Amino acid sequence: MKLSKLLGNRLKEAPKDASLISHILLYRAGYIRQNAAGIYSYLPLAYKTMKKIIDIVREEMDKVDGQEVLLPSMNPREMWDKTGRYQSIGSELIRFQDRNEKDYVLAMTHEEAVAFLGKSELFSYKQIPFMIYQFQLKFRDEPRSRGGLVRVREFTMKDAYSFHLDDKDLQEYYYKVHEAYSNIFSRTGLKNYISVQSDVGMMGGKLAHEFMLLCDDGEDTLIICPECEYKANKEIARCRLEEFREKPLPMEKVHTPGQKTIEQVAGFLDKKIEQTGKAVFYYDDTNEQLIFVLIRGDLEVNETKLKNRLKSKEIRFATDEEILKTGAYPGYASILNLKSSDGLKILIDESVLTSDNLVVGANEKDYHYINFNLKRDYPDAEIFDLYSVPENSVCPECGNKLKLSKGIEIGNIFQLGDKYTKSYEIQVLDQDGKPQTPMMCSYGIGIGRLLASVVEESHDENGIIWPMSIAPFQVHLLCLSKKEDAARKASDDLYKELLEQGIEVLYDERKESPGIKFADADLIGIPVQIIISDRNIETGEFEIRLRKSKDSRNLSYSSDYIKEIKNIISKELSLCRR
Amino acid sequence: MKLSKLLGNRLKEAPKDASLISHILLYRAGYIRQNAAGIYSYLPLAYKTMKKIIDIVREEMDKVDGQEVLLPSMNPREMWDKTGRYQSIGSELIRFQDRNEKDYVLAMTHEEAVAFLGKSELFSYKQIPFMIYQFQLKFRDEPRSRGGLVRVREFTMKDAYSFHLDDKDLQEYYYKVHEAYSNIFSRTGLKNYISVQSDVGMMGGKLAHEFMLLCDDGEDTLIICPECEYKANKEIARCRLEEFREKPLPMEKVHTPGQKTIEQVAGFLDKKIEQTGKAVFYYDDTNEQLIFVLIRGDLEVNETKLKNRLKSKEIRFATDEEILKTGAYPGYASILNLKSSDGLKILIDESVLTSDNLVVGANEKDYHYINFNLKRDYPDAEIFDLYSVPENSVCPECGNKLKLSKGIEIGNIFQLGDKYTKSYEIQVLDQDGKPQTPMMCSYGIGIGRLLASVVEESHDENGIIWPMSIAPFQVHLLCLSKKEDAARKASDDLYKELLEQGIEVLYDERKESPGIKFADADLIGIPVQIIISDRNIETGEFEIRLRKSKDSRNLSYSSDYIKEIKNIISKELSLCRR
Repeated sequence: MKLSKLLGNRLKEAPKDASLISHILLYRAGYIRQNAAGIYSYLPLAYKTMKKIIDIVREEMDKVDGQEVLLPSMNPREMWDKTGRYQSIGSELIRFQDRNEKDYVLAMTHEEAVAFLGKSELFSYKQIPFMIYQFQLKFRDEPRSRGGLVRVREFTMKDAYSFHLDDKDLQEYYYKVHEAYSNIFSRTGLKNYISVQSDVGMMGGKLAHEFMLLCDDGEDTLIICPECEYKANKEIARCRLEEFREKPLPMEKVHTPGQKTIEQVAGFLDKKIEQTGKAVFYYDDTNEQLIFVLIRGDLEVNETKLKNRLKSKEIRFATDEEILKTGAYPGYASILNLKSSDGLKILIDESVLTSDNLVVGANEKDYHYINFNLKRDYPDAEIFDLYSVPENSVCPECGNKLKLSKGIEIGNIFQLGDKYTKSYEIQVLDQDGKPQTPMMCSYGIGIGRLLASVVEESHDENGIIWPMSIAPFQVHLLCLSKKEDAARKASDDLYKELLEQGIEVLYDERKESPGIKFADADLIGIPVQIIISDRNIETGEFEIRLRKSKDSRNLSYSSDYIKEIKNIISKELSLCRR
Repeated sequence: MKLSKLLGNRLKEAPKDASLISHILLYRAGYIRQNAAGIYSYLPLAYKTMKKIIDIVREEMDKVDGQEVLLPSMNPREMWDKTGRYQSIGSELIRFQDRNEKDYVLAMTHEEAVAFLGKSELFSYKQIPFMIYQFQLKFRDEPRSRGGLVRVREFTMKDAYSFHLDDKDLQEYYYKVHEAYSNIFSRTGLKNYISVQSDVGMMGGKLAHEFMLLCDDGEDTLIICPECEYKANKEIARCRLEEFREKPLPMEKVHTPGQKTIEQVAGFLDKKIEQTGKAVFYYDDTNEQLIFVLIRGDLEVNETKLKNRLKSKEIRFATDEEILKTGAYPGYASILNLKSSDGLKILIDESVLTSDNLVVGANEKDYHYINFNLKRDYPDAEIFDLYSVPENSVCPECGNKLKLSKGIEIGNIFQLGDKYTKSYEIQVLDQDGKPQTPMMCSYGIGIGRLLASVVEESHDENGIIWPMSIAPFQVHLLCLSKKEDAARKASDDLYKELLEQGIEVLYDERKESPGIKFADADLIGIPVQIIISDRNIETGEFEIRLRKSKDSRNLSYSSDYIKEIKNIISKELSLCRR
């Protein structure tokens, strides 16, 4: 490919409001252009990289016996009514009507379409297990699409779905795909990725893992134990909470004039903040109810855990007015002395059990109780895991100190159980002729996000540094001569020869200054650069340079330079594996 | 791939309302399933075929220097307002709003997205010509989606767009892609396809060609001259109209009691039907006006030509009431003696010029005029090509008798001129530094429709007959033994060996009857069948049979049978070329 004809210009300016480096570099280097918020055109350089990623993913899916399919994006509403997701998913799901005013959605994932297919095709245990996968557009109307290709509203996803008849088979296959995912990420050249336990979110099901690229600019917070295997997204993470044990004392109402915050009350009563119970009020917009969470004073409520518990799409902090209506008194709120709990849902976080003799509100201005002991004083409480892991916590499994990291999600896998097969009433006959409901898993990788994640990990101040396995071209050939001279002829000849040898070359044959050409080559990020100039043509050599290390050497035209170039490409390629 | 695990069952029944054989066979053989009207899932067999078609198309696009891209499906309304198509396209264009109530369309084609990109990237003549292409979903909310994959509402299309600065370059490249399209269709195994001149339709522009598979079940009617190069879709076709010349006589009003139809009047007045002028009234829903077409009595109005002339999305016959309002008298309607032509648009078809002394209506019950001569009696008429080519017409170019054929459109190419580049105000500097507006062409192939078209052409009473180039597998291996015996062991071994040799095999290892297995193999249509049975294992041979010709022979296990199988595959493959 000649650079002069390549669609997509190099630009000096970053896009407005860009914060992620992958967004800035992919835009500046002419890989992507934005059509609307979260909607991008992939220009030729980006598509070449995308296609190499797709080919790697396809190979790994085929290795675990995946069957490639293509399922439609337009899904009739009834398909999503069947699983309840037409209602339970908010405005991320794009809904529209066709010419006959029939309701449709644009699939943001394809569990429904897969279950629909399973319903018509599955009848016998002999057909199971199997896995199907596709590369298909997904539409998600994100409220905050930002960060270039990392959070978009339309994207190509590799999604896969497996069916199983027993849990052993499901577990085995799930971890086989986990392994395939690791292969994929390593083969695309990523180094610093891990898998963590994660929220099942809108997918439902029992267990899920996210593959995360560790990256300071990531949106997700990860809780990682450096000593054992424990790794989880903060959205679902747990820790071992320190306990504060004392001999339970009788509960007593105390005067705490003007002491409204937890810190004030604890200080006034000379208690540790861990020995207080904090009331937090939310309003649950989905179920239209007020939520009262009691949690240990030093901890914060984890809103993902709370939303999952409530099966709510949207929660927000309640207003003082809303709180007053329930009979609770803001600043001194308590589950004790509530005039009525109509329309109020009370949830107790498990941290409340870890301290004895807690200070809690009295639902009366300027008064608190001391020596509240949940099991004794509120015995019917339902207790849940609703806390957010704080800094400096210890591992719930081994007790060692946990580490917090930021990450970008690059893939996720879900054990869905029978959620979808049950909704679609899929049954197959087992070996004894008895009907059984199969179980499903699903597995996703956003191709564009993976592409951007590689750039997040692999770049320098001058531009992108592609791993060889997914680089848009293998070699960037620069002719530094502006004239029709020996250097240009040598460049033209080498370009042809490299093409004939099956080497992928981007040839900068423009009559621009060397400075512009070097800057463009570094920005575009092709791993091997070959430079032909008026100067080195005189010595019968050309320069070959690695984008990453800047290692440079000269190769003589009289040597077996093709072999040498191929060796360099192979060596770079060999870095892209586990 | 083992057949027992392949997703998609073989079925005895055709889908309800299926008329096209490709629809019936692809459904029965387990290639496709319908999710909603015109919306299909591609099961593994179909996707394998689709992928081979995509690879062929990609190769041919790359050969004409195409650059692959991926442009978004979600297009903000403003992109389509710019070209006027948000308004001018009817409900085929799917419109919806995002979470912020911003208007979007689902792209049914990507001229807007390409022009949007051109606007930001093009600045110099040095960048032009170039072509970009993609494989991307298209959404078209067809009123009558029928025929399986032939007319659908969501489909994968290869669309391509080229930019040119002068007409010579445009013409050269356009016909280069025309050639690439022929290569594509031949390489997918199609034989009876032609290209015809076609309506530019919603694309606009100056000239267009459709590639048509000749096929009795096709929706399109083609007008073909067997003697010269003239070939056109009936929607735009012309013919040489026979002329009826006489000495013009004075116009005269005559009493024609009860003679309302053209045939009655002609008979009553002893005139040929070609010597009458017929009034046809339409209502143009887009422009909200009544249309009066005057056409020679023996001819029909071509509604595509009429709609293009009116720039109308929708026309229908006018009601008597609507006609009466204009002052015209139904049955005796005429452009003469119209009380008023307010709100009435009069269009004269060019056929009216071919006869002298026409009989036309008098706008008065039971009266006609004879000897109407357009140029003399209605000199200010605007004259257009609005007729439909009738049967038994002669070629407009060479005068030989035209043939009518039915066809399925398998690809189309358009010379768009500057319609889109002008709307987007794209200008580049030419060699003299002067701004120029580039021109565009666009080129489309629906992948699923091409797949179905191959089945339309290549099948028999038992099922599909795939050309080797796009068959889902090369070899269908049938083990006829139901037991764990020598035949099964030989089958398992051959399956492994074929896979190791890189041959694509579907292995029917089920314990079903030979009858079921043969029927399934013929239905699925893989070009080479290999049969291993208890009987032929005894003679140390297996049977190899061609799906198409049923030619069968035995190969000995002691021979170089792999070489022989590869030869057969190569020979079949060699049939898929021009």
